[in-house]
Amino acid sequence: MEAAIDTLVTHFKTYAGKDGSSQTLSKEEFQSLVVSQLPNLVKNAADPAVIDQLMGSLDENNDGELNFLEFWQLIGKLASKRGNFSL
Amino acid sequence: MEAAIDTLVTHFKTYAGKDGSSQTLSKEEFQSLVVSQLPNLVKNAADPAVIDQLMGSLDENNDGELNFLEFWQLIGKLASKRGNFSL
Repeated sequence: MEAAIDTLVTHFKTYAGKDGSSQTLSKEEFQSLVVSQLPNLVKNAADPAVIDQLMGSLDENNDGELNFLEFWQLIGKLASKRGNFSL
Repeated sequence: MEAAIDTLVTHFKTYAGKDGSSQTLSKEEFQSLVVSQLPNLVKNAADPAVIDQLMGSLDENNDGELNFLEFWQLIGKLASKRGNFSL
C-alpha cells in the first residue's frame, strides 16, 4: 500500500509543481491531472464545467487552489464509489 | 493514479473481509493491515496502544469499526506527512 500512496503523492507534486509551488494545484493543473490520470474515474474531465464543479466542491478555503488534503477528499470519494462502499 | 487507487481499495477489502463484512475494518483487521501494509508509515504498529490511539482518532462514529472513508482519512494524513505538505 505504501508504494500506492507514494504514487499518489508523487503525481500530485508533479502536477502541482508546474507553476512553481508544488504545494497546491491550480485549476489548470487540476484539470491536466484529472484528464490524464483519472480518465475512468472522472468522466468528461475536458469539460471546464466538470472541473469547476469538482473544484467548487473540494476547495474548502476558496482560494482557487487545491491543497493536498482537499485533493485527497476527491480521491477518497472516487475510491469509495469504485469500491462500492456505502457512504 | 487509478491503479494506485485500486490497490488501496483492494487491500482495504481484503483486510476488511476477513470477518465476513468487507465494508469495515475491525480493530484486529486494522492492526493486521497496518502492521503488514504500512510498516514505514506507522511505527510500532504491533503495539495495541498505537492502534487504539489511531483508531480513536479515526473512528468518528465510535462503532469500533473503521469504514472506508474513516480509513481514508488516516491514509491522507500519512500521505500528507510523507509528501511534506503543510496541513
